[in-house]
Amino acid sequence: MAQEIIYTNLVIEAIDDLVASLGTPSVYVIVDVNTAKFVLPILQSQSEAVKNAEIITVLAGDVNKGPDALQKVWKELSDKGATRKSVVINVGGGMITDLGGFAAATFKRGVRFINLPTTLLGAVDAAVGGKTGINFNGLKNEIGAFQDAVAVIISTLFFNTLPMQQMLSGYAEMLKHGLLDDKATLAELMRYNIENPPATPDLLLHLIEKSVGIKQAVVASDPHENGARKTLNLGHTVGHAFESFAMDVEHSPIPHGYAVAWGMVVELILSHMKLGFPSDTLHQFAQYIKEHYGYFQITCEQYPQLLQLMAHDKKNDTPEHIVFTLLKDVGQPVIDQTATADEIKSALDIYRDLIQ
Amino acid sequence: MAQEIIYTNLVIEAIDDLVASLGTPSVYVIVDVNTAKFVLPILQSQSEAVKNAEIITVLAGDVNKGPDALQKVWKELSDKGATRKSVVINVGGGMITDLGGFAAATFKRGVRFINLPTTLLGAVDAAVGGKTGINFNGLKNEIGAFQDAVAVIISTLFFNTLPMQQMLSGYAEMLKHGLLDDKATLAELMRYNIENPPATPDLLLHLIEKSVGIKQAVVASDPHENGARKTLNLGHTVGHAFESFAMDVEHSPIPHGYAVAWGMVVELILSHMKLGFPSDTLHQFAQYIKEHYGYFQITCEQYPQLLQLMAHDKKNDTPEHIVFTLLKDVGQPVIDQTATADEIKSALDIYRDLIQ
Repeated sequence: MAQEIIYTNLVIEAIDDLVASLGTPSVYVIVDVNTAKFVLPILQSQSEAVKNAEIITVLAGDVNKGPDALQKVWKELSDKGATRKSVVINVGGGMITDLGGFAAATFKRGVRFINLPTTLLGAVDAAVGGKTGINFNGLKNEIGAFQDAVAVIISTLFFNTLPMQQMLSGYAEMLKHGLLDDKATLAELMRYNIENPPATPDLLLHLIEKSVGIKQAVVASDPHENGARKTLNLGHTVGHAFESFAMDVEHSPIPHGYAVAWGMVVELILSHMKLGFPSDTLHQFAQYIKEHYGYFQITCEQYPQLLQLMAHDKKNDTPEHIVFTLLKDVGQPVIDQTATADEIKSALDIYRDLIQ
Repeated sequence: MAQEIIYTNLVIEAIDDLVASLGTPSVYVIVDVNTAKFVLPILQSQSEAVKNAEIITVLAGDVNKGPDALQKVWKELSDKGATRKSVVINVGGGMITDLGGFAAATFKRGVRFINLPTTLLGAVDAAVGGKTGINFNGLKNEIGAFQDAVAVIISTLFFNTLPMQQMLSGYAEMLKHGLLDDKATLAELMRYNIENPPATPDLLLHLIEKSVGIKQAVVASDPHENGARKTLNLGHTVGHAFESFAMDVEHSPIPHGYAVAWGMVVELILSHMKLGFPSDTLHQFAQYIKEHYGYFQITCEQYPQLLQLMAHDKKNDTPEHIVFTLLKDVGQPVIDQTATADEIKSALDIYRDLIQ
């Protein structure tokens, strides 16, 4: 079943039209404690479908995206009489669309679900691509399934409740899609000031639509992540290492999107070293990241630990081969690129010079 | 990915060839305490693939096919280092192929699995059709996924460790496929004496192959159970009611296949009443069931309870419409047939006369 993506700020109409078209006897809305407070009341007061729906609330945050929350959702769906014809609406960030999507994909061997991402990161990233799942045994998304929503409703309506840090975190994924697409798209994104946006909210919706379109095209060509989809890992090999290092070693977590932003700078440096990525574009991009995201502090004493974290990334089967997606130029990704420890250390040196 | 079905009593060769062809770095074998004792040692001593595999053992029986066993399998796969390229081999009855299949389908969003059913029912029924899952919240298969194995190895090699009751239980599903297929198939099945089989074991393997082929053709035409696949519910509306009644009311469980055998007799009577199913075939079939399965005792005082159980079967959305698959003749099923309470009571009366 093809997944429909609806870009609109008329969210209520979109939900009610969708639910009516699905001809379902019953609707179940999954929220976390935040969206229960900030988003659900708006939907309940205005949407016929949500007004009559059963509500399932879970704790917020990735730390709660585990088997306990999964069983809670399964149990409430079961107790509240959901059938194979029911529809689940996931209202929240990536945590809710991952968890709720997986619960729906496995309840009675699969009920239909709609995603209503309420964060920029969720809109751009987690709501498209068919990835659902939970963290398990201390590992992110260790358990899950590939299952598309019947529809994803993308809106900027609920972003005003988000802290700027979370907006910037989502915007990093959009910058990544710009790097994968072409120079015009990247330039358009770098002209838009997410920290001080113009008064036209539709411009952001337009940028999101373009960004999701880029991801969709990649995912459609490779639904099970065997080839082209690896291009979406740009920035993530180094980014994940920064994220884990901040969390586990420094005990001072950084937002995922920030880690990816800094990771992209390092990986563009590697791209320049190994594939001739243009120096001027690298410098402009690094400058943009420095201005908006600041700098993730590392020292050369920490390189061995960072290299070890890169080697343990789940995309890497063997520690000898740390695999990256690199760019020959904007819009020209090359997957399955390896780099030696010395090359990576040089890139980290240059990163520190560039944006410190 | 198409599911391969291999009918062979050269099980060791089949496993080793399959695993070699899958080019996998690691194999995980899921067994219950029974197959760990009776089947696993044979495989470990002779199969290269199983010799080097990690073994995951769970408690036996449908009562243990729940979220705890699921988490145990997930955890051991995770702890023992299974990757997306690993292969899981499920060795056991339907409980193991359901549980292990679901665990594999959801571990890291899906690893490949091979089913080696060790019971007749598992070989005929549970190993084909892509249904995986667990019981949850007191409901059978409440949680699960549609996911084919890469291969199912069907063999009669391990049946000699099974009690006759379990063989007969599996054989009832084969009789059902005979009723759905044609007169020649049904006659062949009714000639074969499962309780006193001829000395040619390959004859049973041949009958299983034919039976699975019938189910495969139905499932292939309707993978998500929206239409033709409902024909496979023949005998099950009444059968499930008998099974639940024996379990929950009389506290004296009966094997699933026995319940289906008696359920088929009642539903053939309904077929005769409503669609003109031939009387002589009905009598021959009832006689066969009486001889091999005996009689499930019911009284007319119990009819209201039995009707209520039929109305609560998961295939029925509303209690007013109890839905059956009935037959115009052998090989001519008609789905979505309803019957009134009076008609069902008459059929139960005739059932008692026929095989008491």
